[in-house]
Formats: sequence, structure tokens, C-alpha cells
Amino acid sequence: MLRTSTRAGALSLRYQAVRSFTEQLALPLSAEDQLVQSMSDVSPTKWHRAHTTWFFETFLLMEHLDDYTPVHPAFGYLYNSYYEAVGARHPRAERGLLSRPSLQEVANYRRIVDEAMLSWLSRLDDEKDKVALDLVELGLHHEQQHQELLLMDIKHVLSVNPIDPAYHDVDPPSAKPVPPLAWSPFEAGAVAIGHVGDGFAFDNECPRHEVLVGDYALANRLVTCGEWAEFMEADGYRRADLWLSEGWQTVQAQGWDAPLYWDKRNGSWHVHTLGGVRPVNPAEPVSHISYFEADAFARWAGARLPREGEWERAAEGTTLSGNFAEDGLFHPAPASVAGLTQLFGDLWEWTASPYVGYPGFSVADGAVGEYNGKFMINQMVLRGGAAVTPADHIRCTYRNFFPPHSRWMFSGLRLAKDVA
Amino acid sequence: MLRTSTRAGALSLRYQAVRSFTEQLALPLSAEDQLVQSMSDVSPTKWHRAHTTWFFETFLLMEHLDDYTPVHPAFGYLYNSYYEAVGARHPRAERGLLSRPSLQEVANYRRIVDEAMLSWLSRLDDEKDKVALDLVELGLHHEQQHQELLLMDIKHVLSVNPIDPAYHDVDPPSAKPVPPLAWSPFEAGAVAIGHVGDGFAFDNECPRHEVLVGDYALANRLVTCGEWAEFMEADGYRRADLWLSEGWQTVQAQGWDAPLYWDKRNGSWHVHTLGGVRPVNPAEPVSHISYFEADAFARWAGARLPREGEWERAAEGTTLSGNFAEDGLFHPAPASVAGLTQLFGDLWEWTASPYVGYPGFSVADGAVGEYNGKFMINQMVLRGGAAVTPADHIRCTYRNFFPPHSRWMFSGLRLAKDVA
Amino acid sequence: MLRTSTRAGALSLRYQAVRSFTEQLALPLSAEDQLVQSMSDVSPTKWHRAHTTWFFETFLLMEHLDDYTPVHPAFGYLYNSYYEAVGARHPRAERGLLSRPSLQEVANYRRIVDEAMLSWLSRLDDEKDKVALDLVELGLHHEQQHQELLLMDIKHVLSVNPIDPAYHDVDPPSAKPVPPLAWSPFEAGAVAIGHVGDGFAFDNECPRHEVLVGDYALANRLVTCGEWAEFMEADGYRRADLWLSEGWQTVQAQGWDAPLYWDKRNGSWHVHTLGGVRPVNPAEPVSHISYFEADAFARWAGARLPREGEWERAAEGTTLSGNFAEDGLFHPAPASVAGLTQLFGDLWEWTASPYVGYPGFSVADGAVGEYNGKFMINQMVLRGGAAVTPADHIRCTYRNFFPPHSRWMFSGLRLAKDVA
Amino acid sequence: MLRTSTRAGALSLRYQAVRSFTEQLALPLSAEDQLVQSMSDVSPTKWHRAHTTWFFETFLLMEHLDDYTPVHPAFGYLYNSYYEAVGARHPRAERGLLSRPSLQEVANYRRIVDEAMLSWLSRLDDEKDKVALDLVELGLHHEQQHQELLLMDIKHVLSVNPIDPAYHDVDPPSAKPVPPLAWSPFEAGAVAIGHVGDGFAFDNECPRHEVLVGDYALANRLVTCGEWAEFMEADGYRRADLWLSEGWQTVQAQGWDAPLYWDKRNGSWHVHTLGGVRPVNPAEPVSHISYFEADAFARWAGARLPREGEWERAAEGTTLSGNFAEDGLFHPAPASVAGLTQLFGDLWEWTASPYVGYPGFSVADGAVGEYNGKFMINQMVLRGGAAVTPADHIRCTYRNFFPPHSRWMFSGLRLAKDVA
Repeated sequence: MLRTSTRAGALSLRYQAVRSFTEQLALPLSAEDQLVQSMSDVSPTKWHRAHTTWFFETFLLMEHLDDYTPVHPAFGYLYNSYYEAVGARHPRAERGLLSRPSLQEVANYRRIVDEAMLSWLSRLDDEKDKVALDLVELGLHHEQQHQELLLMDIKHVLSVNPIDPAYHDVDPPSAKPVPPLAWSPFEAGAVAIGHVGDGFAFDNECPRHEVLVGDYALANRLVTCGEWAEFMEADGYRRADLWLSEGWQTVQAQGWDAPLYWDKRNGSWHVHTLGGVRPVNPAEPVSHISYFEADAFARWAGARLPREGEWERAAEGTTLSGNFAEDGLFHPAPASVAGLTQLFGDLWEWTASPYVGYPGFSVADGAVGEYNGKFMINQMVLRGGAAVTPADHIRCTYRNFFPPHSRWMFSGLRLAKDVA
Repeated sequence: MLRTSTRAGALSLRYQAVRSFTEQLALPLSAEDQLVQSMSDVSPTKWHRAHTTWFFETFLLMEHLDDYTPVHPAFGYLYNSYYEAVGARHPRAERGLLSRPSLQEVANYRRIVDEAMLSWLSRLDDEKDKVALDLVELGLHHEQQHQELLLMDIKHVLSVNPIDPAYHDVDPPSAKPVPPLAWSPFEAGAVAIGHVGDGFAFDNECPRHEVLVGDYALANRLVTCGEWAEFMEADGYRRADLWLSEGWQTVQAQGWDAPLYWDKRNGSWHVHTLGGVRPVNPAEPVSHISYFEADAFARWAGARLPREGEWERAAEGTTLSGNFAEDGLFHPAPASVAGLTQLFGDLWEWTASPYVGYPGFSVADGAVGEYNGKFMINQMVLRGGAAVTPADHIRCTYRNFFPPHSRWMFSGLRLAKDVA
Repeated sequence: MLRTSTRAGALSLRYQAVRSFTEQLALPLSAEDQLVQSMSDVSPTKWHRAHTTWFFETFLLMEHLDDYTPVHPAFGYLYNSYYEAVGARHPRAERGLLSRPSLQEVANYRRIVDEAMLSWLSRLDDEKDKVALDLVELGLHHEQQHQELLLMDIKHVLSVNPIDPAYHDVDPPSAKPVPPLAWSPFEAGAVAIGHVGDGFAFDNECPRHEVLVGDYALANRLVTCGEWAEFMEADGYRRADLWLSEGWQTVQAQGWDAPLYWDKRNGSWHVHTLGGVRPVNPAEPVSHISYFEADAFARWAGARLPREGEWERAAEGTTLSGNFAEDGLFHPAPASVAGLTQLFGDLWEWTASPYVGYPGFSVADGAVGEYNGKFMINQMVLRGGAAVTPADHIRCTYRNFFPPHSRWMFSGLRLAKDVA
Repeated sequence: MLRTSTRAGALSLRYQAVRSFTEQLALPLSAEDQLVQSMSDVSPTKWHRAHTTWFFETFLLMEHLDDYTPVHPAFGYLYNSYYEAVGARHPRAERGLLSRPSLQEVANYRRIVDEAMLSWLSRLDDEKDKVALDLVELGLHHEQQHQELLLMDIKHVLSVNPIDPAYHDVDPPSAKPVPPLAWSPFEAGAVAIGHVGDGFAFDNECPRHEVLVGDYALANRLVTCGEWAEFMEADGYRRADLWLSEGWQTVQAQGWDAPLYWDKRNGSWHVHTLGGVRPVNPAEPVSHISYFEADAFARWAGARLPREGEWERAAEGTTLSGNFAEDGLFHPAPASVAGLTQLFGDLWEWTASPYVGYPGFSVADGAVGEYNGKFMINQMVLRGGAAVTPADHIRCTYRNFFPPHSRWMFSGLRLAKDVA
């Protein structure tokens, strides 16, 4: 009997839901699609499915079940991502070379581990096994992160294919004009940010602490493709004075003249989406921009990017709803209401804040201590989740992070400004 | 009714045999296996199957059938290898990223083109359509080259996989000692080499012409793994004086200390083969060595590599038989008879001759003129075919060629020396 | 008559002093020494001497003197460093290829510009020419930055020379044991940091604003070479768990096993200094470490790096004295007194703070606006100046910055910790 | 008393002449000029002066003088070029970083070694010391090769400097039209090539042996800049069909659209020479072209490059005179006479022959065995010497060699064709 009244029972249900959503995301993809690695940042779908399984097998089954035998002696080597403490691992850039184990073997791997996990979970006690249950919960959030990565990655994989394949069939979003840009003001003061309390959060969201903010205002909505086109027409990609020095070098070295996935065809801009290639919709939020581009745009617009304290304070009081992975669009939608909107879902919003530990932050012991802390350098924080983020994975304290040159994640921007 | 008494009829039969052998070679491989590109020199099996089909579609069907519509508008871009005259093409290093067209679509492509080819071939006249028939024959030899490439490439693909996959099940060769090294002497003089007459040959085998050779001798058989192990034990990979300067730089930059595919496991040398990983067999010919290594070994052995005139003169009188692709070993076998042996099959033999055009050589007009001539720089000639070469593809005038650092082809060496 | 009672007069005197100190620093170096560029981060001494002169010529003489003719039409191209607004420029990595203009021509360039500058300065009015005088002051601080760069750079240039050349003769510092590590506590609160008032400061030090700090303590002195040796012996460079992920990649890619300039000779560690190679002195502060190394050491020591607010608050009340360029050691000296010491001079201290603009920061208009703001990404702040920094160039609000992998500047570290 | 009647005496005189010519070539160059290394193929003048000295010190003084102490313990490391047998050496690409030893120290090094050499030479006996005298002669030819390298290299060094410096003052050559292209025919047969007899020759010119040539013709003179301009106007650099595959890749990767040192200024082609930048003279031979370019031009012109046997047979009967280094032009001059001309001097002529050992070639024992043989791969032979080659250094059997992509040597081309 399912013990849904216990935490272990609830986690069992959630385990099944999360794991099955991963399978659902992989469903439109052939074995060939699931093998391709189009750049070293990208991992194959097959690898995501195996690696998330390895996480449960390694950190839970092998730790807690005395008689557990790993499904395959090589999977520890093949499917470890970056845990130095766990041992040697297959080079990241070569994940697309592994035609074997076959996709079928990976599907079996998932099934075997799921059965073992569910059987084990059914025997856990909320009190005595709290640490293990915490780790199961972490594993599920880990898998949800990989669900988003799976979609980001397969989008890139399909984008490098000259025959313009699509991941799914979906109606293009409305081209109805969006509400005009407006500013939501906030007063200066010491504001508390970061996670506190019982719910799940990653270590990098803790401890809750105060930061000082000045008088500021946030734009009501995300910057649109139409506004981005104005920036491009105003020589935004050709004016060195708008750019950080390293950003300008990147623009020149990479030949950037538009966001990632934009492509001029017969004189008009098109964009590659998970639903295929279609004309750029001026009403929809501009996506797949680097921090360098977001920063240059804000400078051109006479504004700036929000700091993460400013963003979190504004988001804290609002309802956590938006366009998320469960909606199945996998693409940002135009803003449709007046007032401060799109804080959650649609696109991750670049902040002006470098990714550092909060005062008092400390990493956990053991391998899972490698989860967040060791990446706290040369990255910028993004907030709010995107159209490829599972809805129950996001929080207003959630800190995502990417290097300033990265573009393959679902990133966008919201303007901010100081108020005199 | 099949007109086997005509050349067109014979070519129809041969067309079916060659095309079907390609399919047979792909049979042990999954869709995933057929997609992987493990380095830029390697092409995926799926690509080989499509590219050889594109050759017939582009140079024959599209040229000769007024109402022929290409199977897919993008295949000309995707499956052109290096024909500048035919137009733009997909970057070579990205062939492993094309999960679509799917393997099934490529199989269909082959079927459709085969039907059109056979239907068209049945209407050809030996006299009036001689040029077209010549091109069909070239296309079949082209496909046979890709059969060998397919095997070379899939061997490399499987070799980079940490779980040691095999292409097929096959018994390991005999470890019976081989005949001792002996020298077959030849007298100095002007000898004629190169192709002449009616049979098929590539343009680079023409024209037949005389070259001067001195008194020389050839080793009776290929150098074995056992002899190579002696070279290694004698610090062959650590003595700069044995190597060409560029070879020595390569040894150091690549960390070479053994032939490609050799791997020391628990203190003893193993080798990756298409039949899986197994201990090195001292009796079998050493394979997958670069020109640099062959040259260094010969210097260490107090001998040298044969020049191509010396090799061809020795081979001309002998029977064209050996261990070829049709034998299904896909691996060199130990020499088993006394006397000059292994000239054909087993392994391509490095010669000391740079790959240049013979005196009077000229390239054909049009795209097929790009077949050989434009590669006549920075490559060395190899002779005799290998265990992955189709038997009816080889001739004693056949000139294969690779850069001196390449190792993923089935290459070996036979010693030569001057005779006082 | 020198009008030292005016700002213009005082600046004239300071102009002469600063410019002449640059010449003094170049004096021990031959024309050959002054030409070498040992890596792209490094500039030749000759280039530093020319570029600082170009700054005055371009931003002052050419702006303010109607009849001024540039000394050489190509110098604008050759000696612009990174000012996009000023136009095209010679590639940074090729500065060491310019044997011409000769060193003598560059010396003449300095003389001609100095004469024009001093003549022009003598005619300026403190009130009417305030903007120009501000820019002269900026130019002098710019030249002082290049004095430090000149010493950093020539240290690197000489370090790559196998014959161990020295820049100057200098006595090695005392090896007397330093005061033991002790902690200076500071109380939590809102503290004001950043520049305000009349004195000179760079734009990146403004505006003054409040930040929140917790209860914390700073180590009394810099970490020593002796302490660093303990870290090395404790496998500090071989334990992945101590490092940021990108730091660990750098350690492995670069083969780091000690600070830059350390070299094991006959079994004992030596260090390259501007005074030549000598045994590592355990008492002196460890220098030429990257942020990655400083961060790993702090983690190993159970401490952390200070944030810049913590550092500045501690430094604000103290006397601005220390071991600076004018002392002529050009090398950090062991701490010699108890209490909080070495805050200024000796070595730049890595902080845990990414280099971002203070709230309300804005860049100046025109080319000099490129001075600081455009570098505010992927860099960390260092504080306090070093033994190669001119004494009157530093302030407690001064923010230096380098990428986390850089090591050729005079960087060290001071530990910090939270106080419960 | 000088014993010019002996070989040792003659070599003493020649030693002084050769060594002093090196000094004369360096005279127009400052210490700064002599330090620069503009790419890794190039060596600084100072290095050439030191390395040639090291050759005499290492292979003669240290071998034959019991009490000889090397001038500096580090010079063996710094000034060894590529002799693996002699030991470790300073990385080639870092030769431009050695401001010390100073130019003055290198001049002293030359003086000390010269004194020791001349003193020792005066004591040698032609019979007993034949081996040593042979090595002295090799050392002098070695130094002459470096005289040419010095000029090639300094030309490149000055070419990367945006202010267009010149090495020397020299009148531009006549622009008088050259004799029209005409063909000198030669009959087919077995012709003997290679060195035999008493005079000096490098090992790669031996042994003399026969090769077969067909009926062929050589162009009377070198291809001119005017003819090259026609090739350029006929889209020579944009037609893939004219190029070897690797050549075409190089054209695209390097953006080649003209010979090295050509630069379009205000719409007309200029060329960098050792005498400065000046308009391209259509009458003078085109220089600084790669093998790839020479081969493409010949194909465009409906001709081919000569094979080395064809060239040597034509040159054998002619007078060894031409425009050499002693003429002091250091630049090719227009052909001025009818008939087969420019075979010697002006420019090295690319042949269609890969650089391989002649039948029977063997390398010498010891370090000097590394002189030629180890470079016999991936290079093409050039013949005849250039305007920077000393006149008494060249022979009709002399084989120079460079990789097919190299352009910084004084290379040109003469057309050849088969005669029916």
C-alpha cells in the first residue's frame, strides 16, 4: 500500500512522476537523436537519462543497500559527470561517441534502478532515514535540472542539422503586441534574501541574509525580439562602446550579429525553436542571449540589469506561476498582462550579480558537496526559471548560473534602473 | 531478362553485388553505431552508405535521366565529400551530428537509387554509352573504397569506447610461428610500372612507364607483432636517431609508444580488433602503424622500405590472392607459407615513395578529375590491399596513399634492402 | 618661475617626478631587455615608456594645443593599448616584434612630449582648466600603474631566460621568523566603502556606499612561503576537493605544483626574483599566486578570503605605509611587527569579491570612460598595493583586479574568517 | 705565415671570409633588430650569429682541443638548433625572448671561437687531419646556409613592422620588359644526377645515379610578377580546380590572395623588400611563393613544374653565375638576356620532386648525420640558389627543400612541359 501520508511515500510518488517526465521528454527522439553531442557543453539525451540514474544508483542504492550490485561495472566511469570524489570519468567532450551501451540498455538501466529505488523507498522511515530521504529529494531536483538540460541540449543538437529538424509540433505563439514597457518601483532598504525553512533548497540559496538595495525599478516584462531588432538596427553588435571588453572580443571572435538560433533567410530573421524554424515574432521575449549581450543591450537602452537582491525582493511576494515545462511549449510566450509579469517561467533572467557564496555559505561534506560551491567563479546569476524548467523545481530564491559567454540555455533579460 | 553477355549486363550484376556487400558490412551495426564519428578522419557508417549512393545519383542519374528528381534536396549538400566542382558541402568534422536523415531514410535512399540505376542500366548500350558505363564502373570501385573505409572507421569508432565493443565474432588467428625472415633478390634494370590495357584502373596508375631500380631484395613476408615488440623493447620509440624529424615530433606530441590500438593491460599488450580486444599475437603482421613508425623500424632493422617500382615489379608476376574482405576476418593473418608471400591482402605495405603523378599523368575533366590528382602532396604510397579490401578491387598497379602520420588504416610493412 | 602654490604648478612638479621615475626604472635594462614580450599579457618596457607618453600626447596635447603635430604618424596606431574610441591599434601579442622605432626614438618621444606638456602646463589656470588638470592627474596615475606593470613584466621576461638574469642587485630579506598568525576581530554592521571627497580616485572607487558585513576577523599578516610549503606538502596541489572546478582544471592543464617563479633545484625550492634566483625564504609572504590558489589555500586552512568591504573597513583607519616601489626592494618583505600589518605594500591581497561596479557607478564619457568599467567581468578584486606599487599611487579605496588564473602580478593573500 | 698552398691554409682564409661575411650582413641591424623572432620558423640574427659559432665550438674545438673550455656553460643549451644527439635545447619558438646573452656577448663569443679556430687550423695537417678539415668545410657551408637564413628571417622580421622599415638602401631594379617566354627542349633518356668527385657536397646530393626523363622543355626564364598578376586577375586564388586539395585549404585558412609580402595600397600592389616597400615591378621574377602557389600557377598556365632530374640535366652544362648574395641586391632581378637564363641565383626554383634520399643514400654517423636525412618527408626540392645565397655555396647538384606551404624563403618558379 502506498503510504502517501508519509514523506517517504510522497517521495515515492514524486520519484515516479519525475522519472517518468524524463522518459516523456525523450519520447519524440530516435536512438540516433539521443546520441548526438553537438558541442562539449551539450550532452546527449541518452547520457542525461543514464547520468541521472547513476546519481540514484551511486549515492543511494550503493550507499544504503548492502547487497546491491551495480547494473554495469563501467557505468560509474561513463556516467559520472564531475564528481571528483567518486573517481575517474569519461571525458565530457566524448559523450557523443558512445553508441554502446545502446539506448535500450540505458532504458533497462533506468527500469532496474527505478525498481530498486521504489522498493527501497517503501521501507524507509521518515525519522530514521531523514538523511537518505533528503538525498532522494536532491536526486529528484538533480533530475529536474537535467530535464531542462535535455531540452536545451537537444535544441542545440537539432540546430546544427542543415535540414531544420523539429523536436515537436507546436503552434507558434500569438504575435499580438505586448504591453508597453513600464517600470515597477521599489524602495531602498535592507532586504532579506535566500532560503530559510523546511522546504527543499540547494545549498547555494543559503543562508538567508540581508543585503542593501537602493531605490530602484524593474521593467514590467522581459525584453522582446522586436526591441532586440531595434538594438541590432542601431548597430548594437558593431558599437564597441556598448560592450564589456571581453564581450566585444567575443562578438568579434565568434562573429555574433544576432542571438543564438537567429538566422537570416531571404532577408528576414528566422529562429530555430524546438518546434522548428519560423520567422522571429517581435512580441515574444528575446532568448538565448549571453550575459555580454544582455549587458550591452541594457547599456544601449540607458538602463542596467537587476542585481539578484533586487530581483528576489520583487519576486518574493508574487505568485509562482508562469510558462513552464509542463505547459509543453518549450518556448517563451509574449507577455499578455499589464503589471510586473513573467518573473517566473518563460526565460531565465540575467542579473548583474556574479555567482558567489552567500555570507556564511559552506559546502556539504562528501561528493554532493561538489554540487554548487565549486562553480562559484566566472559565472553570473540568472533567476526565475524558463519555459523548459519544471514548475515544481523553481523557487524565488533559486539561483541559476552560467558563464557570461554562454547562450544555449533559455536566457533572457529584464531591465532595471536606479530611481533618483 | 538479364543481358549478362553485355558489359552493361555484367555491370548490372556487379552493381548489385557491390551495393549489397556494403549493406552486409553495415548489418552488425545499430543505428547508433552507424552515426558515430570518432575523429574528423573517420566518417559514420551511415554517411558512407549515403555518400556512395549520392555518387551514383549525382554523376549518373542526374546527368543521364532527364526526368530524375533527387531523392532529397539537401542530400547534395550533406553527402558530397570533397568535390569542389559540385558545390558547397557539409563540414567533414560534423558528419557525426546528423541524427537526421535517419538510418531508415538512408536505407530508403539506397533502395530508390538502386532501382533507378538498375532500370537505367538495363537500357544502356555497350557502344553508345561507353562513357556512362565507365563512370558506373568508377562508382563501383569508389563504393569498394568506402567499404574498406567503413571497416577502418567503425574499428576506430568502437576503439574509443571504454567498454570494448566488438564489430563481429571471429576466431583469433593461429599463433603458430611464421616462416623466418628471408630475402627475395631482384636484379637492377629499367622496369615498367603502371597500368595499361582495357581493365579498370584509376587515373593515378597511368601512364605505364619505365623506372630504374638497382639490385635489391624484398623480405619474404610482413613484419610481425613479435618483431615489433623487439623494436619496442630496444627503445625504438625513445631513440630520436631512428626517426625522421617530423616523426619524432609526432611521437613526442602524441605520446606514441606502440602501434595504434595496442593497450597495455595488467602488464601485457593487448590489441583492439574488429573482433574485440585480445592479447597481441606475435605471429601476426603488425598493423596500424604510421609511415614514421615503419620508417623508424626499417632503420632500426638495418633495412629500408621498398620503393613502389620495386614492389610492383615483384608483385607483377605473382597470383593476386590473399586475405581479403570477402574472407570476413577483417584482420591480418600470420604468414603461413615460405617464399615471397602476403604481397596482396592482409595489410597495405608502406613504400618509400611519395605519392606523385607518374610522368605524363593528367587529371580527367570535370568533377571526377578531383578523384586522385589533387591529393598528390605530403602523402606516401602503400601497395597491395588489406584484409578489409574487396578482392576484386585490388591490382598490382593499385596505388593507395596516406599522410605519414596516419595510423587508422590497415597498414603494415615489408622490409627491403639494397644488394651489393 | 614654478608656481608650486597652484594646482597646475604642483602637477608640473609631480609630472616631472612621475615621468622621471619611469626612466629610472628602465635604467638597468638594455635596449634588448626593453624589447622582449614573454607572453601576451606582458608588454615590453619600451612599449610602456611609449604608451604612457602616447596617453599625454593623445588626450592632452592633441586635444588642447591647436598647432600640435604628433611626433610620429604611426605612434597612435602602435601605442594605443585598448581604447576602441581612438581607433585601430597594433595587435597586443606583437609588441615584442617592434625593433623599430628604436629605444632611442622612444626616449626622444618622451623628451619631446615632456617639453610640450611642461610648457603647456605652465600656462594653465586652476579654475578655467580644471578638466584638463584632472586629466593630467589621471595620466600620472596611469603612468604609475604602468610603472608597476613594467616591473611585473620585466620580472616575467627575465624569468623565461634559462641563464637566470637579474634586474638589479639587492640584499635578500631577513629570514627571521615572522609573528605567529593572529586574528583581528571586527564587528558586524553597515560600513561605508568607496571614495568620496576631493582627492584623486579612479571611477571604479565611486560612489561611496554602504555594505553589510558580519562579525569577522582578519589575519594579522600575509600568508608566508613557509605556510605555503606546508600546503604543498599536504598535497594541496593534488586534492581536487580544495579547488574551484575551473581552478582544478587550470592546475591540471598547466601542471601547477607551486607558485609562479618557484623552481625546484637540487631538491630545494628556489624562486626567481627581480634580484635573481635564490632559495625560498619561509619568512617572506608567498607571492605570484592566482586567485584559484589563494582560494584553495584558504579552504585548506579552514578560513576564507576577505570580502572587499571587510578589507577596506579594516584598512581605513590605518596608516598608509609599507614596502613600496620607492623602497627599491621590488619584493615583499617578511612581517616584522605584531598586530594587523602589511595591509599596504608588499603584495596585493586577493579578496573574495568579484570586480563589479559599485551601486550607482557610471563610466565617464569619451575614451577615458574605457579605463575601468569595461573590464568588470570575470575578474576578482585585490587590495592594498605591492612592493612594486608607487607609494603615492595607492589608497585604502583602491581596487585592483585580475582574472582568477593570473599569476604574474605581485599577488598574495591574507586569511579571513567569520566570527560566531 | 699563411699556408695558402695547403688545404688547411686555404680553409683558414675561407673561414675568415665566411665568418666576416656573416658579420657584414648583421652590420645594418641594431641590437633590437637582431633580437626579434617574428614567427617560429624565423630565428633572430643574434641567434644565427651564435648558433653558427656553437657549431664550430661543439663539433671542432670541443672535439679536438683537450684543454678547451666552452665560452659559456649555457650556450650548448641555447644555441643547439636540432641536434638530438647533442642534448636538450632551448625551445625554438622562444629564441626571440633571450635579451641576454646580449648582442655584445655574442660578438665576443664569435671572436673567441674565431681565434681558437684559426689558431687550431694553423696546426692542422692536410693528410692526418682530413676528417677534421672536412668538418670545418661543412661548418663553413653551414654558416653560409645561415647567412641566407639570416636575410630571409630579417626580411620577415621587418615585414611585420607597421612602419615599413628597410634593411638597406638599394636602387630598385629596371622595369625594362623581359625576354618573352620561350621553351628550351631536351631529349628523353637516362641522365646522371647527383654529386661525385672531390669537391664539397652535402650528403643529400649523393650518390650520383641515373634517372629516366622524357622529352621535355624548360622555360627560358623565371615567371615574372607581371605574369603572376595575370594569374591573380584570372581568379587564380579563387578557383579550387587549380589547386592541390591541401593547397586550397591553405589558401582559404590563410586568406592568401597574393604572394607573401605583397600588399595592396591605394589600389595598387606593393611589395616589401629588404630595400623597403615599393610598387610591384612586373618585370622582376615573382618571389616568396609556396609550392602550392607555384603548382597552381603552372596548372593554370597549361604547364607543370620541372622534376629535379630535368632541372639538373639542363643546368649541368651551364656557367654557374647569377645574381647572388655578394651582389648585394638581396632581391631577384629581371631576366635580361635571351636563352635559358636565371638557372642560378635570383630565386630558388620549385621542382615537382619530393625531397627523398637518392638510391643508396645513407646518413653519416654521429650528430652531423642529422644534417639532412631526417628532414626527408613532406618537403619539396628547390634548385639553383637565390639572390641571398652566397655564390660559392651553390652547385648544380645542390638540393634545397621546404614544406609546400612555406613562403618566407626566396622561392620562385620556372615552367616545364612535356614535349610530344
